[in-house]
Amino acid sequence: MRHEAAQLWTPDGFVADAVFEVDERGCCIRVDARASRGAAGIVLPGMPNLHSHAFQRAMAGLAERRMHPHDSFWSWRETMYGFAARIGPDDLHAIAAQLYVEMLEAGYTQVCEFHYLHHRPDGARYEDPAAMSLALVEAARETGIGLTLLPVLYMTGGFDGRALSPRQARFRHDVDGYLRLVERLRALESPRLRVGVALHSLRAVPADALAAVLAALDDASLPIHIHIAEQVAEVEDCLAARGARPVEWLLDHAAVDERWCLVHATHLTGDEVRRLARSGAVAGLCPTTEANLGDGVFPLRDFLEAGGRLGIGSDSHVSVSPVEELRWLEYGQRLVTRSRNVAADEAAPSTGERLFAAALAGGAQASGAPIGALRDGARADAVVLDEAAPLLAGRDARCLIDTWLFAGNANLVRETRVAGERLVEGGRHRARDSIAARYRRCMARLVEAD
Amino acid sequence: MRHEAAQLWTPDGFVADAVFEVDERGCCIRVDARASRGAAGIVLPGMPNLHSHAFQRAMAGLAERRMHPHDSFWSWRETMYGFAARIGPDDLHAIAAQLYVEMLEAGYTQVCEFHYLHHRPDGARYEDPAAMSLALVEAARETGIGLTLLPVLYMTGGFDGRALSPRQARFRHDVDGYLRLVERLRALESPRLRVGVALHSLRAVPADALAAVLAALDDASLPIHIHIAEQVAEVEDCLAARGARPVEWLLDHAAVDERWCLVHATHLTGDEVRRLARSGAVAGLCPTTEANLGDGVFPLRDFLEAGGRLGIGSDSHVSVSPVEELRWLEYGQRLVTRSRNVAADEAAPSTGERLFAAALAGGAQASGAPIGALRDGARADAVVLDEAAPLLAGRDARCLIDTWLFAGNANLVRETRVAGERLVEGGRHRARDSIAARYRRCMARLVEAD
Repeated sequence: MRHEAAQLWTPDGFVADAVFEVDERGCCIRVDARASRGAAGIVLPGMPNLHSHAFQRAMAGLAERRMHPHDSFWSWRETMYGFAARIGPDDLHAIAAQLYVEMLEAGYTQVCEFHYLHHRPDGARYEDPAAMSLALVEAARETGIGLTLLPVLYMTGGFDGRALSPRQARFRHDVDGYLRLVERLRALESPRLRVGVALHSLRAVPADALAAVLAALDDASLPIHIHIAEQVAEVEDCLAARGARPVEWLLDHAAVDERWCLVHATHLTGDEVRRLARSGAVAGLCPTTEANLGDGVFPLRDFLEAGGRLGIGSDSHVSVSPVEELRWLEYGQRLVTRSRNVAADEAAPSTGERLFAAALAGGAQASGAPIGALRDGARADAVVLDEAAPLLAGRDARCLIDTWLFAGNANLVRETRVAGERLVEGGRHRARDSIAARYRRCMARLVEAD
Repeated sequence: MRHEAAQLWTPDGFVADAVFEVDERGCCIRVDARASRGAAGIVLPGMPNLHSHAFQRAMAGLAERRMHPHDSFWSWRETMYGFAARIGPDDLHAIAAQLYVEMLEAGYTQVCEFHYLHHRPDGARYEDPAAMSLALVEAARETGIGLTLLPVLYMTGGFDGRALSPRQARFRHDVDGYLRLVERLRALESPRLRVGVALHSLRAVPADALAAVLAALDDASLPIHIHIAEQVAEVEDCLAARGARPVEWLLDHAAVDERWCLVHATHLTGDEVRRLARSGAVAGLCPTTEANLGDGVFPLRDFLEAGGRLGIGSDSHVSVSPVEELRWLEYGQRLVTRSRNVAADEAAPSTGERLFAAALAGGAQASGAPIGALRDGARADAVVLDEAAPLLAGRDARCLIDTWLFAGNANLVRETRVAGERLVEGGRHRARDSIAARYRRCMARLVEAD
């Protein structure tokens, strides 16, 4: 199938009057610039969303009340645990499908699910121990989004190896049970489903378990994700227990490379910044969630100058928008440095293009999928912006991405395709209404159970 | 005309099943709670937007490129001046009307125009010296939004009294000419048009001119706005020239009271925080612009604890959304304090409600108009949210405002009324398409002239 674009975003920036074809497997072939005249459309690669806890979409907005004299990440976590306890496989399916519709409408075409809600609330296995994972797989299949499923290994409640609390019983695996789940899910892999592994965090995965999992799954292309250095308390606990900061410890004790995504990595020393950048791993930044949770500000400028790779995730889903993530990733920097265009430099003067290109490349790497660019052999994940939007009036290609990311409020995404398949048209996912109706019924049940 | 609401926001929070009537002048009468059964709709007062430079809407997104080794507010200002030089009365009308449509669709029902683009680019007067002001009045009339027009007094280029640069020639008045303009505009006042005064900043208005204007316009209800303490360099210059910080100097030399709105007021000492709060003046916060420009972070918690009043403005219009302003006002605090629910306290535990209520009251005060609450005698400015939005599924009145402000990305405003007149229906302003078409033609002209 032949596609045209007045402006097509490539790893080298926009090319005009482009043509690309998509084969029957949903891959791009024959991408040519200046092959068309009078083509319409601003066409971008779909954005990978490298960090998601789908169930949290249903509690967005519920924790914006003061419940402690000093509210923090840790008090938020208690609210989240209470909510998580009520969610079963059907609920997770309904919530994730609603979320994935919103992602596709926002221009995300792949989502990395950092999935730890494995078992029944009391920790007992479901009849099918993979039931919750399969709910996510089904929600992705139903909506058409690409999924990188990352079942989470979660074993201990702190660096001292203490057992999980009763509220965390749903999350628990031993290494063998975990590896069985991973193997079961890897058998399902397809062009839109990758399976990788997630280590919840250094406090939740003992060092020997971490080593055992990595040894058992020695695969050069396996996505490996981990929460790290999100909170100052976590850095302090790690220093006390292991004599090193979390990122420092991980870099010393694991072969961190391009397979890895270090989620948050908020609190870094200059040395950790340089070592992480050199490793080739992706920093998984979640600006709206990190702001909502009061995590702190990532050292973006230093990390980019060191050649670091990054991507974005919507994480807790208080926001589902690559625009808000990238806008406020930059704005957080501006607020604390009192300067402008922090992510840009002489070689890459457009702040929007610099961040957009970085998030496409880093997100694709963290997803373990051939996405992030519309080039020969890549999966044809494409987003079409509304070129008639008043916001873009008078904007040439040079400032399109800046204007899209740093100005306006309306969602400009008109069309979203995954593997060439058109899922969003006129800004609406093709199953928006039925999926929203099922989500509303699910929420009514959950509220009643409260 | 009789209106019903399943939930109606009042200064005491939501009341259920409310009824209110609007008389022929567009005022609320007979607001009653629990007077209806089975009413539909989440009805909020319209939000006042207390700081706008309408023409800047047309350049949103153009300054997100690195043009200096250390980009800042001051390099942004050069871009803005170059753009401003090309705008005449017809352009300003077209741009402002587009902006006001976007404001009404976002739930703003009143806008305070801090208007300094008075003359021809070379400083010569237009045939009608009020031509640019009248373009704003006409844009407000055409779209239906309430307008507080604040013609700006702009005289000098620094605390040393230096003359304005050629690029600032359009802004300049002497005190007599300025007072004539104010008087001319005050004669136009109506239920939807207030006229006040704006002093550009302490660096642009010499102390004697400031005193002369305030003496000439001694009116207990006159809105008086001023840019202040936005930039660290401005604080340093003021200290050097006048031996006091800007807010400190103003509080010492003017009778700052409820008529005043101090716009930005970003850089405050603890003493300035307490004195500003005690004065009864409103702090005019513009979180998205302040982030875009790298201004810094307002001391919100201390100011609220001292009883300070605040409102929000979209200022440069990189964003036109009370949701994004209030969300990121709070999030900026969370990022720098590493805690959550900063604006809330034990007496007002909902962060969203605390900020929403404050911005309604402070915005109304700064606007000098009987708005900000749907109560007897107030102008009937009302916004109806989409209660069927999936985002609000399972949310009761207690967390409606939190969810609206801190979660989701779609604009939930379905209907907006000003003085009882329905301007936005189904999320669309009644003249959206024709005003957008005119705006596009205007932008094509401006780009051609570049």
